[in-house]
Amino acid sequence: MPETLNIQNMADAIRFLSIDSILNAGEGHQGVPLGMAEIAATLYAKHLKVDPDDPLWPDRDRIVLSNGHGSMLLYGLLHLSGYKKVTVEALKAFRKLHSVCAGHPEIEQDAGIEITTGLLGQGIACAVGMAVAEERLAARFGRDLVDHRTWAFVGDGCLQEGMGQEAISLAGHLQLGRLTFLWDDNHITDDGDTALSVSEDIPARFRAAGWHVIEVDGHDIACIDKSIAEAKADPRPTLIACRTTIARGIPRLQGQRGGHSAPLTPQDAQEARAARKWPHPPFHIPQEVYSDWDKAMMQGRTAKSDWQERLKKHPAHAEFLRWTNGALPDGWLDALPETSSEARPTIQSSGDVCDALLDGLPETIVLCADLEAPTNHKRRRKAFTADSRDGSYVHCGVREHLMGAMADGIAAHGGLRPVNVTYLAFADYERAAMRMAALMGLPAIFVFSHDSIGVGSNGPTHQPVETLASYRAMPNMRVFRPADAIETAEAWQIALEIRDGPSMLALSRQDAEQVRKDGSENLSRRGAYVLAGSETDRDLTLIATGTEVGLAMKARHILEECGIRTAVISMPCWELFQDQDAAYRAAVLGAAPRIGIEAALKFGWENWLRPDDAFIGMTGFGASAKAPELYEHFGITTERIVATGKSLTGH
Amino acid sequence: MPETLNIQNMADAIRFLSIDSILNAGEGHQGVPLGMAEIAATLYAKHLKVDPDDPLWPDRDRIVLSNGHGSMLLYGLLHLSGYKKVTVEALKAFRKLHSVCAGHPEIEQDAGIEITTGLLGQGIACAVGMAVAEERLAARFGRDLVDHRTWAFVGDGCLQEGMGQEAISLAGHLQLGRLTFLWDDNHITDDGDTALSVSEDIPARFRAAGWHVIEVDGHDIACIDKSIAEAKADPRPTLIACRTTIARGIPRLQGQRGGHSAPLTPQDAQEARAARKWPHPPFHIPQEVYSDWDKAMMQGRTAKSDWQERLKKHPAHAEFLRWTNGALPDGWLDALPETSSEARPTIQSSGDVCDALLDGLPETIVLCADLEAPTNHKRRRKAFTADSRDGSYVHCGVREHLMGAMADGIAAHGGLRPVNVTYLAFADYERAAMRMAALMGLPAIFVFSHDSIGVGSNGPTHQPVETLASYRAMPNMRVFRPADAIETAEAWQIALEIRDGPSMLALSRQDAEQVRKDGSENLSRRGAYVLAGSETDRDLTLIATGTEVGLAMKARHILEECGIRTAVISMPCWELFQDQDAAYRAAVLGAAPRIGIEAALKFGWENWLRPDDAFIGMTGFGASAKAPELYEHFGITTERIVATGKSLTGH
Repeated sequence: MPETLNIQNMADAIRFLSIDSILNAGEGHQGVPLGMAEIAATLYAKHLKVDPDDPLWPDRDRIVLSNGHGSMLLYGLLHLSGYKKVTVEALKAFRKLHSVCAGHPEIEQDAGIEITTGLLGQGIACAVGMAVAEERLAARFGRDLVDHRTWAFVGDGCLQEGMGQEAISLAGHLQLGRLTFLWDDNHITDDGDTALSVSEDIPARFRAAGWHVIEVDGHDIACIDKSIAEAKADPRPTLIACRTTIARGIPRLQGQRGGHSAPLTPQDAQEARAARKWPHPPFHIPQEVYSDWDKAMMQGRTAKSDWQERLKKHPAHAEFLRWTNGALPDGWLDALPETSSEARPTIQSSGDVCDALLDGLPETIVLCADLEAPTNHKRRRKAFTADSRDGSYVHCGVREHLMGAMADGIAAHGGLRPVNVTYLAFADYERAAMRMAALMGLPAIFVFSHDSIGVGSNGPTHQPVETLASYRAMPNMRVFRPADAIETAEAWQIALEIRDGPSMLALSRQDAEQVRKDGSENLSRRGAYVLAGSETDRDLTLIATGTEVGLAMKARHILEECGIRTAVISMPCWELFQDQDAAYRAAVLGAAPRIGIEAALKFGWENWLRPDDAFIGMTGFGASAKAPELYEHFGITTERIVATGKSLTGH
Repeated sequence: MPETLNIQNMADAIRFLSIDSILNAGEGHQGVPLGMAEIAATLYAKHLKVDPDDPLWPDRDRIVLSNGHGSMLLYGLLHLSGYKKVTVEALKAFRKLHSVCAGHPEIEQDAGIEITTGLLGQGIACAVGMAVAEERLAARFGRDLVDHRTWAFVGDGCLQEGMGQEAISLAGHLQLGRLTFLWDDNHITDDGDTALSVSEDIPARFRAAGWHVIEVDGHDIACIDKSIAEAKADPRPTLIACRTTIARGIPRLQGQRGGHSAPLTPQDAQEARAARKWPHPPFHIPQEVYSDWDKAMMQGRTAKSDWQERLKKHPAHAEFLRWTNGALPDGWLDALPETSSEARPTIQSSGDVCDALLDGLPETIVLCADLEAPTNHKRRRKAFTADSRDGSYVHCGVREHLMGAMADGIAAHGGLRPVNVTYLAFADYERAAMRMAALMGLPAIFVFSHDSIGVGSNGPTHQPVETLASYRAMPNMRVFRPADAIETAEAWQIALEIRDGPSMLALSRQDAEQVRKDGSENLSRRGAYVLAGSETDRDLTLIATGTEVGLAMKARHILEECGIRTAVISMPCWELFQDQDAAYRAAVLGAAPRIGIEAALKFGWENWLRPDDAFIGMTGFGASAKAPELYEHFGITTERIVATGKSLTGH
């Protein structure tokens, strides 16, 4: 450990790079980087294990800036510690188009930016996922290969957010001892004093959840150093509550509401330089300060070299690299189960796949929000608990938003494939986290059961009607609504192969007819396909998704008997179909009159239906009754399809 | 207070009505009604102030069943206490179509069902809103007219949910002393023991947030009675942590995981009757038990009569009734401000309206999530705080999901008009609460600023692109994206007039051109209208919303100069436009080629655009740069509209 570092200077270097960059950009949030400079410098100088020359090193410590508006803290740290992409030029382009130094951190792991943050609470919730991933991987590969920590910089806002509270609760429950929150307790929010909206005893709140809590002066380097050492030694997750002065160093703003993000002036920069005795011109860091930062990184570089040696000799060498590279093993598809020909809920078929992946793709880890029995994805999986890190099923409790962000954090950490399971009605609770997965391009898989009025008597609170549309509207999210067991397995296969974004599966609680006989070719890959009938000779086209494909097939049988040549299009994934060439799309959709059939609202179906086509689905919220009765009540029936088909074709 | 009641018998009546109804329905959640029967019976017998003959009495206590899956607890209570709509026949129709006894409680206030619950956490968060409403109304009208309490039955799941945690935090901060949570601490969740996912010290967590906490045996009637009396006497919000046995009374299931919702058998019912010494046949309640329930209601009936006498003589009689009836006062529109002709952000124009409503519609109450300055809806409003209940602006902190549900709770309580303010990016955080407003048909108003890439350098995390579509897909939600100050005022007017559902306003951070000159007629009422150009003689139609209407107007100017007769359609509210007759819609949309223009994704625009029409907007997530540069970067410009218009019209 280099003892000769001038950590105060290292901290002031962060401070002035931040002031200069924010002044140069004309806007930004100085509160965090100026208030947390000593905390961050101490962590990097004395404790952090990273190698800036190898930002993707799997056993690196993970840094999460949960208070992402304070992005200059992170950019300053990355620049000073030697991440090559974060140059002075990049800092000068702070908040400008295409800069690595965006307004809020945007994931770019080879630049040292582990995760996108900015929406409060997401960061610490992701950090919980990262800490789970670390423990799970360590249980599989041993501490020789997996021995790192997760550090999160945290603001008041993150702790006010419900998902932040969920993170505290579950991290305590799971005793994630390698997770440390460095809380910027500056008493100031965007609105003014935190006392406007917070009066709880935050350390007591963490203690109630089983955390180790240390309270320190956030500008006292020796105390910070000691507290981090204590955090590392304690088996519990640790909150280091750092009492800080927001925007410390700018006389006009420090400790004030304006310290948060009020526009800086050249005079502010000048006065700060005088106050902090920092005579250097803008963006200039003296060589001895760079040198201290460089020395600080030696511990990580050494650790990395030692680790590489250990990896070479490790018996699980190849498997470790496969997991961390996210590669699918040869023959993994062979592990997938034979599908039954009996009607059964697609959530059960999904459970079959998930079961099989325990052998075929052991890097899968399932997160579930207290719905083990109805969602049925636990079965053979052992729970990941405080005492047992080799489980691959996390009981997340009724904490969906956290769970979504944990999936993001696990995916961003690398090495595991997160699978998130709950009811589709709760997709709204975790929507922001799912959007983050889409924005970051993370391959998280979100499995939802109870996808429609098929839920039955639990009623409209639990019956999605607009949820599919709301996610089809989201960029970079693939929404699958498979029709049967074969399409469910196909959706899983595609979702696991996709590496650049999340997928979601909307699955049924009720039985789905087995409409496909042959699973030898993955037809879902094209998003939609002709399931029955002719591609060219048809009088009518039925386009359906999910459980309604079974209805369409029954209707087709009757329509054909009436002499109406009917094609059934199964359309499990709109996004993939949209990606096909126009000729394929035109051939599948055909020129004949069309009926769209989905137990959901029409919104979005205008993509596939022309004004004279028909849609059979929902027109508003559902109701409480048994599923078959609801299908009757809302007119989503074979009879209605047949009648509509006859009418459209003039019979 | 009637001292001769046999509360244990009253509780067992709940128990057996629940068993009989669930057995009759073939499904249901017996855990809550059987576990909480003594708690509920004691509350109703000794403390609750309601009049079952007048379920809408404004000064009634509010009951929230936050663990809504235990709906039979509520239906049993309502039946036994004499709410006329909850008959034995209704109980026999539990979970059947059109029954007042739906699977989860669905708001029907004249049946005594105050609010829809079932999605965990929503109920207690609504309860916080109700308690705020009570305090605010009491500050306005005095304790002679407003003097009631909010009681919430709460399960473990509600306390795990982030929004539940937000509720705890803010209720403590605001010291809502008339709010009491009755926690069913039964140690069992759907997945099994709560220890699977919870290990925090929940009483300590509440104490950390400033709550009064009492721990009792949830089956000991005297202790429950005493604890409720203490809760009423304490100025803090109170958690009564009731240690209970789930499904108490059914020997096979009590205290077990299956107690939560495992299917009941006739034998269970028989064994329960033996165990609880309840010899009565199914659905039969002895007259002496009904009589005790009836006696228990006397306190509420007497309070109601006394209150009516006080109301008659009260100087604010008429105003109180106007507020509680939700009527808009004569001439309220006169209070609205003159709109400026200068370009300015629509969020600022919205702030002008909100300011004026402080005088014109003083029953408005603004909730804001720590964004006072950028959303600018505080200005003249005084804060509602622990010490000062006459404020009409609630600093909700960074707790959006709670805030959304508080708006629901305030609207359901009645007497106030909630206005919820934050950034549109955070609409995802409160989506489930907004859906509840739509499902319940509550007139809450959700105002969002920073509605597009116009946010600028804060980047894609903060830039909605799919959010408008995701809410346009939601039933019973009116989504407004006004173009300028006049349309913003129009949207407010319509939103305030709508009584059967929520509205949301998506507003700009950046300047919006003032495209309307004349505000004498509310043109937004029809959802879309011809802003410029001819209804009949046109070569091209530009359809735009929000800030892009200004772009369309500029493009029109250039196109007209090129000899292309161009109409501009402003379309601030799709839902209202959809409600117009087909002739109006056809006239507005016209037959000429169309260009849709919105700084958002195209999803949903297929409603208004034909395959050969064009759309100018986003195709994915945004980026971090200043707003004008982003509009250039993503090609949402006057030039592009002009070029596209020329191309479509063959110029």
